[in-house]
Amino acid sequence: MAMATDSLKQDPAVLSARLRRAAETAAHADLDALLITPGSDLRYLLGARGESFERLSTLVLPAAGGAAPVLVLPKLEAPGYADVPADELGIEVVTWVDGEDPHALVADLLRRGGRAPSRLGVADVMPALHCLPLRSATGAEQVLAGSVLRELRMRKDAAEIDALRAAGAAIDRVHARMGEFLTAGRTEAQVGADIAAAIVEEGHTEAEFVIVGSAANGASPHHALSDRVIEAGDVVVVDIGGPIASGYNSDCTRTYAVGEPAQPDVLETYAVLQAAQDAAVRAVRPGATAESIDAAAREPIAAAGFGEQFIHRTGHGIGLDVHEEPYIVGGNALELEPGMAFSIEPGIYHAGRWGARIEDIVVVTEDGVLSVNSQPHDLVVLPA
Amino acid sequence: MAMATDSLKQDPAVLSARLRRAAETAAHADLDALLITPGSDLRYLLGARGESFERLSTLVLPAAGGAAPVLVLPKLEAPGYADVPADELGIEVVTWVDGEDPHALVADLLRRGGRAPSRLGVADVMPALHCLPLRSATGAEQVLAGSVLRELRMRKDAAEIDALRAAGAAIDRVHARMGEFLTAGRTEAQVGADIAAAIVEEGHTEAEFVIVGSAANGASPHHALSDRVIEAGDVVVVDIGGPIASGYNSDCTRTYAVGEPAQPDVLETYAVLQAAQDAAVRAVRPGATAESIDAAAREPIAAAGFGEQFIHRTGHGIGLDVHEEPYIVGGNALELEPGMAFSIEPGIYHAGRWGARIEDIVVVTEDGVLSVNSQPHDLVVLPA
Repeated sequence: MAMATDSLKQDPAVLSARLRRAAETAAHADLDALLITPGSDLRYLLGARGESFERLSTLVLPAAGGAAPVLVLPKLEAPGYADVPADELGIEVVTWVDGEDPHALVADLLRRGGRAPSRLGVADVMPALHCLPLRSATGAEQVLAGSVLRELRMRKDAAEIDALRAAGAAIDRVHARMGEFLTAGRTEAQVGADIAAAIVEEGHTEAEFVIVGSAANGASPHHALSDRVIEAGDVVVVDIGGPIASGYNSDCTRTYAVGEPAQPDVLETYAVLQAAQDAAVRAVRPGATAESIDAAAREPIAAAGFGEQFIHRTGHGIGLDVHEEPYIVGGNALELEPGMAFSIEPGIYHAGRWGARIEDIVVVTEDGVLSVNSQPHDLVVLPA
Repeated sequence: MAMATDSLKQDPAVLSARLRRAAETAAHADLDALLITPGSDLRYLLGARGESFERLSTLVLPAAGGAAPVLVLPKLEAPGYADVPADELGIEVVTWVDGEDPHALVADLLRRGGRAPSRLGVADVMPALHCLPLRSATGAEQVLAGSVLRELRMRKDAAEIDALRAAGAAIDRVHARMGEFLTAGRTEAQVGADIAAAIVEEGHTEAEFVIVGSAANGASPHHALSDRVIEAGDVVVVDIGGPIASGYNSDCTRTYAVGEPAQPDVLETYAVLQAAQDAAVRAVRPGATAESIDAAAREPIAAAGFGEQFIHRTGHGIGLDVHEEPYIVGGNALELEPGMAFSIEPGIYHAGRWGARIEDIVVVTEDGVLSVNSQPHDLVVLPA
């Protein structure tokens, strides 16, 4: 909900450099401008945490060599952007009121230089509600602005990496307390509510996601919570995270056993998974491809005969979004560079019985990799 | 956050009728199909509360006379749709896995009849991340599916109106308790946290929004919360709401004074506002236009010389979304019909000093109007 009262004030020099690089990258991609509606891209570029409504708010960021940027806002949303250092950033703020056509307004702004735009980058999160009218109003071809901004956002600077490490430490503290929450006789939902409270207590602004997948529910990777009562002998996947005040996210999975596992194949399967996660982390270094990391996780699992039970990609980038570039998936030949941050989270899912997953967030360094999470990777056997 | 464990099971007969009407309306609008990604439209049509991820999930609903509907899901999201009565609704479920191209998959499904689609309705909430690739993959013109689905969704049936009344009663109970929370010496954020807890206690699944706008903050209609300490004599706008388990939302604003108002013009201005809100409600009946309701609210405010201080439209539709059609705004000539539900929420905002707003949700009946909210409209003077 929209209750946060802190507003992440960003150093204008950092924002200014990001805006300049975004405009340059847009020019390089042969775009006339980027249209960035509220979401993580806007937060990255302006430090602004506007929310998306049916009323159009958008940054109009002309490509390098073009006009000055303009922030178009509904008049009644403008106070929410008071912390944006518009003057320092050389951004003009234009407001509109109910009854005016904001899409025509944006089209007019884009024609200020006397020339209609031919190719525009639109924010990946822009809803069709604005994307389609902006296409009609401008007449321009649209491409995803994410294809430009990913080039910036997936290369984290030192402050961003510090933020990811702080988020990682916060979620590690929650996993370290799991014995307080996860016991036999409680429902997944009860355990999840306690974990959600602990996520906030340990330094997050909210519990963005809480997965407690016990027994067969653990074999469904995106299962969240249910009223199933956890029993002694259950294997339980706990995948949790959320943002800290800076907006950067944690995301960490550990697999627990409530008492000694009842299923006979748990220890053997888990050892395969642990080896696979470890192999993938060790494969991370500058120049390795994203798909090679995926393969490094997949090979030991396939060799043990569980290839069909590892039903998702190995990982996803993380930062201001929980899921962002780079994706660690077959077919992604992207070469890793220092500053890229992503999850490594192989899983093995025995449908109808149990599942396991191990997830850490790692950052590519100049000569290898660092993990922002430091809880042990072993199957944690809690008292039942 | 994704913690809800209840899944709104909908009567398949209701869903079936909605799907049929949506397909018929799509045919009437000369569309080949509707592509509905997760959001309120999908919930309305399938009872499914899927969440939007970077992985494409979409209902492919051919226009009447076309093929059967298909629900396209990432394989690992499929368990979240287990409650959709796909067989009863005649819906085929097609899953895809990481590495496959879901946009090409949808394009192939649309060509099943042997003919490429020429015009598709895409969900208003569909992000550009899917909207643009679907345009490329299908080659079809895109229009907003909302233009079709609003015809269904803005005419609520009896069960939906009951749900809105239940939500209204729940938020009324929170306003009735405002004296517990709102006192001098507390910050807006502290008051807001208590209100958020009460919203849940009184029957909502979450506190979707909590606005506590004290003194000058009340003059910014979308101000949420701040660390400002509320003082004796402050006027405070409290605009709150959220969904109940059925997914239908509450939204209700009252204006409070903490002790006798310090500003000299409060009672006089407030009387104008109260008369305007009342006039707009009394103007609601079948056949009246949306813009005539807006005018009915605006006229008394303008006559009192506050026209420039009423800086937003008079209202918005409400249902599964907090903001949906019909919008009560100048230029909207839509004729009201029984079953339409919307807010009537004029406000007067004295920039830099204080503001006031009164908001109820009303439903058009066969012969007039009913309000789902029943707390008094007077300025509520709380002990300081």
